[in-house]
Amino acid sequence: MREKIHCAVIGLGRLGWSHAEYFAGRIPGAHLLAVADVIEDRAVTFAQQYGVPIATTDIEKVLSHPEMDAAVIVTPTVTHASLIQAAIAANKAVFVEKPMTHSLEEAAAITRLVEATHAYCQIGFMRRFDPSYRAMREQIHNGAIGKPLYFKTLSRDPGCPPRSYLQESGRIFVDMSVHDFDMARFLMDEEIVEVTALGGIVHNEFLRSHDDIDQALTFVRFASGTLGDIENSRIAGYGYDTRAEVVGTTGTIQAGALTYHDIRMFNSRGSTSDLFPGFLERFADAYYLELVDFIDRLRRGLPPAVTVEDGYKALALAMAATQSYDEKRPVQVKW
Amino acid sequence: MREKIHCAVIGLGRLGWSHAEYFAGRIPGAHLLAVADVIEDRAVTFAQQYGVPIATTDIEKVLSHPEMDAAVIVTPTVTHASLIQAAIAANKAVFVEKPMTHSLEEAAAITRLVEATHAYCQIGFMRRFDPSYRAMREQIHNGAIGKPLYFKTLSRDPGCPPRSYLQESGRIFVDMSVHDFDMARFLMDEEIVEVTALGGIVHNEFLRSHDDIDQALTFVRFASGTLGDIENSRIAGYGYDTRAEVVGTTGTIQAGALTYHDIRMFNSRGSTSDLFPGFLERFADAYYLELVDFIDRLRRGLPPAVTVEDGYKALALAMAATQSYDEKRPVQVKW
Amino acid sequence: MREKIHCAVIGLGRLGWSHAEYFAGRIPGAHLLAVADVIEDRAVTFAQQYGVPIATTDIEKVLSHPEMDAAVIVTPTVTHASLIQAAIAANKAVFVEKPMTHSLEEAAAITRLVEATHAYCQIGFMRRFDPSYRAMREQIHNGAIGKPLYFKTLSRDPGCPPRSYLQESGRIFVDMSVHDFDMARFLMDEEIVEVTALGGIVHNEFLRSHDDIDQALTFVRFASGTLGDIENSRIAGYGYDTRAEVVGTTGTIQAGALTYHDIRMFNSRGSTSDLFPGFLERFADAYYLELVDFIDRLRRGLPPAVTVEDGYKALALAMAATQSYDEKRPVQVKW
Amino acid sequence: MREKIHCAVIGLGRLGWSHAEYFAGRIPGAHLLAVADVIEDRAVTFAQQYGVPIATTDIEKVLSHPEMDAAVIVTPTVTHASLIQAAIAANKAVFVEKPMTHSLEEAAAITRLVEATHAYCQIGFMRRFDPSYRAMREQIHNGAIGKPLYFKTLSRDPGCPPRSYLQESGRIFVDMSVHDFDMARFLMDEEIVEVTALGGIVHNEFLRSHDDIDQALTFVRFASGTLGDIENSRIAGYGYDTRAEVVGTTGTIQAGALTYHDIRMFNSRGSTSDLFPGFLERFADAYYLELVDFIDRLRRGLPPAVTVEDGYKALALAMAATQSYDEKRPVQVKW
Repeated sequence: MREKIHCAVIGLGRLGWSHAEYFAGRIPGAHLLAVADVIEDRAVTFAQQYGVPIATTDIEKVLSHPEMDAAVIVTPTVTHASLIQAAIAANKAVFVEKPMTHSLEEAAAITRLVEATHAYCQIGFMRRFDPSYRAMREQIHNGAIGKPLYFKTLSRDPGCPPRSYLQESGRIFVDMSVHDFDMARFLMDEEIVEVTALGGIVHNEFLRSHDDIDQALTFVRFASGTLGDIENSRIAGYGYDTRAEVVGTTGTIQAGALTYHDIRMFNSRGSTSDLFPGFLERFADAYYLELVDFIDRLRRGLPPAVTVEDGYKALALAMAATQSYDEKRPVQVKW
Repeated sequence: MREKIHCAVIGLGRLGWSHAEYFAGRIPGAHLLAVADVIEDRAVTFAQQYGVPIATTDIEKVLSHPEMDAAVIVTPTVTHASLIQAAIAANKAVFVEKPMTHSLEEAAAITRLVEATHAYCQIGFMRRFDPSYRAMREQIHNGAIGKPLYFKTLSRDPGCPPRSYLQESGRIFVDMSVHDFDMARFLMDEEIVEVTALGGIVHNEFLRSHDDIDQALTFVRFASGTLGDIENSRIAGYGYDTRAEVVGTTGTIQAGALTYHDIRMFNSRGSTSDLFPGFLERFADAYYLELVDFIDRLRRGLPPAVTVEDGYKALALAMAATQSYDEKRPVQVKW
Repeated sequence: MREKIHCAVIGLGRLGWSHAEYFAGRIPGAHLLAVADVIEDRAVTFAQQYGVPIATTDIEKVLSHPEMDAAVIVTPTVTHASLIQAAIAANKAVFVEKPMTHSLEEAAAITRLVEATHAYCQIGFMRRFDPSYRAMREQIHNGAIGKPLYFKTLSRDPGCPPRSYLQESGRIFVDMSVHDFDMARFLMDEEIVEVTALGGIVHNEFLRSHDDIDQALTFVRFASGTLGDIENSRIAGYGYDTRAEVVGTTGTIQAGALTYHDIRMFNSRGSTSDLFPGFLERFADAYYLELVDFIDRLRRGLPPAVTVEDGYKALALAMAATQSYDEKRPVQVKW
Repeated sequence: MREKIHCAVIGLGRLGWSHAEYFAGRIPGAHLLAVADVIEDRAVTFAQQYGVPIATTDIEKVLSHPEMDAAVIVTPTVTHASLIQAAIAANKAVFVEKPMTHSLEEAAAITRLVEATHAYCQIGFMRRFDPSYRAMREQIHNGAIGKPLYFKTLSRDPGCPPRSYLQESGRIFVDMSVHDFDMARFLMDEEIVEVTALGGIVHNEFLRSHDDIDQALTFVRFASGTLGDIENSRIAGYGYDTRAEVVGTTGTIQAGALTYHDIRMFNSRGSTSDLFPGFLERFADAYYLELVDFIDRLRRGLPPAVTVEDGYKALALAMAATQSYDEKRPVQVKW
């Protein structure tokens, strides 16, 4: 087992900053050697605050650093493919935020590259590390609900992303449902072979100009004939809301009680608990645990827990859903 | 206000028996004058146990009784239309279990008949009387969630009905979803104008020979552009499960905690509450309250809370969903 | 089985009115022949609204009515003893609200009278008919928690009763804890042999002039050595709150989720459910079911489910708790 | 801000091992320089597994190490006082597990020593770092329940500790209630001035020979006149159970939903969630966060969040409760 993995975080937006904070002292075996961002000040500020040796805008410099073992890519999606390729070319291990890319061709190319080079490349589907979903999966695999028959998830965002983000987010199925497609594969342990996507705009009329919607429902068919549905929306004014359920022959299992702090207030309004304000709070543990696992696997020389194939497949399903929505018909997905 | 409403319960199956028990002493102003069933023994047994004057197989006799005010029809659906017509012809008020009929033509004919005769005819959509759904509706109407944007219900039966019932149940959308269509109209206070029905068999292969399925998902579009989805299944081995949710601009509201008795057991298996074994337990209050309301309105000379128009519209939506499923396309519903 | 029990409700305060409404048409086999109240108008109003033959201020007249079978006493506690005695003298069955009396001597006298005359006299400990507590008791008796080891209840009132009521309420242990002592006997199926009562005024200073308190804690010891505690208060500004728990060797069982309607609202304040505003809402089912049971037992000639002995014992424990509080020492109770 | 705090974990029992794991790579700014245990193998095994430079049985060596900044003491309570004194003499910062000591004289001596030397000494009342309790405290301090009137906690252990531990655990009030006394001070922000302790053996007869009990109830009076109660037991066969509630003039606030993983299983047994198996799982976040805070304060030169005074006061209350139980009377505590 290697003692230290020297790593760089590339991209210090909200999520990148959070990842970098984890690497700066909370992850066993990780040494944060560099942070990079297009805004130099941001990198410098972070580096000073957390004692990181290198702060730069020059990604080339980061990737060519001889002691660097791994690059953590948290930049805008449009830059992912080239950064992954550069990192692999420089012989670095890669952790890349979801989605891997918005282009299925790019995703396929990366998948082939990783296969050819045996590079380490982990996709940031953090939900796979959420203790609830993991416990749910374990129960399903242990037969707690018998044979799984129906899959159901729901992911609602508190609001629409800003216009600038929408431009390159890949529309709702790629931006949001991709997580649910990955959960479908993770929890059901089989492939989806058909998607029927429905939806529309129920609140945010401005999305029309982005060819996007704020409410989606995707009906899915798995290879074995089991079925499921995925609801996504951007209208949850009340908070960040993700739930999952799998119905089996002998029972059903659910995650998502939506309680943030384990306290209940009783007053003249009734009994109240607080909700998760956003994904960073809801998946705080998951984000941490996926990075711990990333470093741990590198130290042990193990393959990644979430592969480029996982990234490719979830994206392929999201693209199929988009096509289904646009063409108003079920779309088959062949693997 | 009339002091007493003399009534007859026609059909003493499980639900009819339960209704008759309510009428036999628990409903203010109701006097159960007769019970009728095709099995004479059943009627006689009930009458003896509860002190009902008339027990018969002869529905004609019941409907022509000069003191009879109202007929409560809880017979198989196939007999509803002719019984309603006979009761109205005999100038009796009618309470009829859902669905009113399986034929849209019959439903339309009854609707016209009721309009022409000004007869009292209440449809047994008992969920409208469930305290949870009523409280939910009141909150929505009071603006508690802002403007409603998305409607969502789920109704799961613990298993498939027997083959004999399936023969004449009208398939899953008419048998089960009809309740959810009525809830959609009740909670959202607007009409559904398009349905897209999806689904399949996930467990009960024998349904294929009945041209039926055990898992359905219906996507609905309301007149104002708001959307929704309805999940129905017959695979809930764990119990009877009905949930509802309406998402609005400022919040979401849910019903269906699925807890039968308000007790929690903590032991080595964890923390456990019991579930509703079936619809009679889940909707015990609702069944009672709809019958109380039926008698109360007759005594006060008020029109029914759930009209033949409500029955017709829910059926029309269920038929449209069946057509959508069969033809694999969205179906518009014109009102 | 007798067809009808002709009964009178004596006392039309909030609870008496509610009881009388149940008798007027909702309870199988009950015929409400008379209502009586010291305020004649109240009785007349009720009688007109619900079609009750007799409305009077003359209790004598009610108790001497030859067709009257039963008297339901819902008058102020101070009048209970003489009314029970008069009713028994007139050979009527009796249902009397809790507490049976505030005087242990009176309670003992009534108990002896009932034993001597074999009169039917049921005490209004309605909690015994609450579906949650009944399910809890059944689970305990079925061994679901192993051997019971610790008993725990909590009853909190939304506020202090009015001064006029406090004058004759018998102080907090007699007014409130009496219900919990009855629950202890009901759920544990054994007798309490020692009580240690503690407490004080935490909010309502005016109680000092009534020699009363607004916060109490009673530690109890059962005959077998098992223990328990009872919390009572009059400070629950948030609603009416009753909870119970019994810990056993293999688990614990709780009642009291405090959710009124089964709906949850999610908005910017979090996730909210409503609470029970008062005991009439919390125990609506229980109040109804105890009266149904009262009539049913009279019709079948069965003894009462809650006896004068139950009334006497709960009162004796409440008196012992009062003594313990006053004398600041544990008080033994001998049976 | 200092970059690194070099620290040693002394005592590698279950909790010490867990603490040492946190220090070995998960706590920003911490460098685990040494681990010590009376069993050399344990220290060596840990050091090899986690790459710790020094593994020893020689505490002297650890405390005299010139680069060592802090000692984390997780040894049996009986050794705490001398280790704290030695560490302070060696000019090291100290983190010591609760209880600080079992002797009030020792606790007072340590308190004086810390005051005199201005040493850094943090007591391991980890519950103060639990996100639920912190959120609860914040709500109370923000006035969410009005003026606090009643405090209530409950801590139940799944079973009795082993006899060897009981010998020197200080009996139930010192071993268990000490946490609740600290929570009382933390949540109510005022001092307890009187305790009345009750209880007995309800299940574990062998405790008699240890002069100990398995069920305790302590009634507390705060300086301002507010009241409260604390239940402790060692009979919770179902899991580890800690709950807290504070009732105020306008509402009540609770912590302790007792749900481990956020999943619910519905099957023929009902609806089930899992419970916390033990304190390590229940307070995993709290244990981590208190150590993060320990290092962070040392780096920033801030005083400890949980002081020796806090340790002394909680112990004094636990001792007073023991005295109250033994002498069967309320015991005043003067500060």
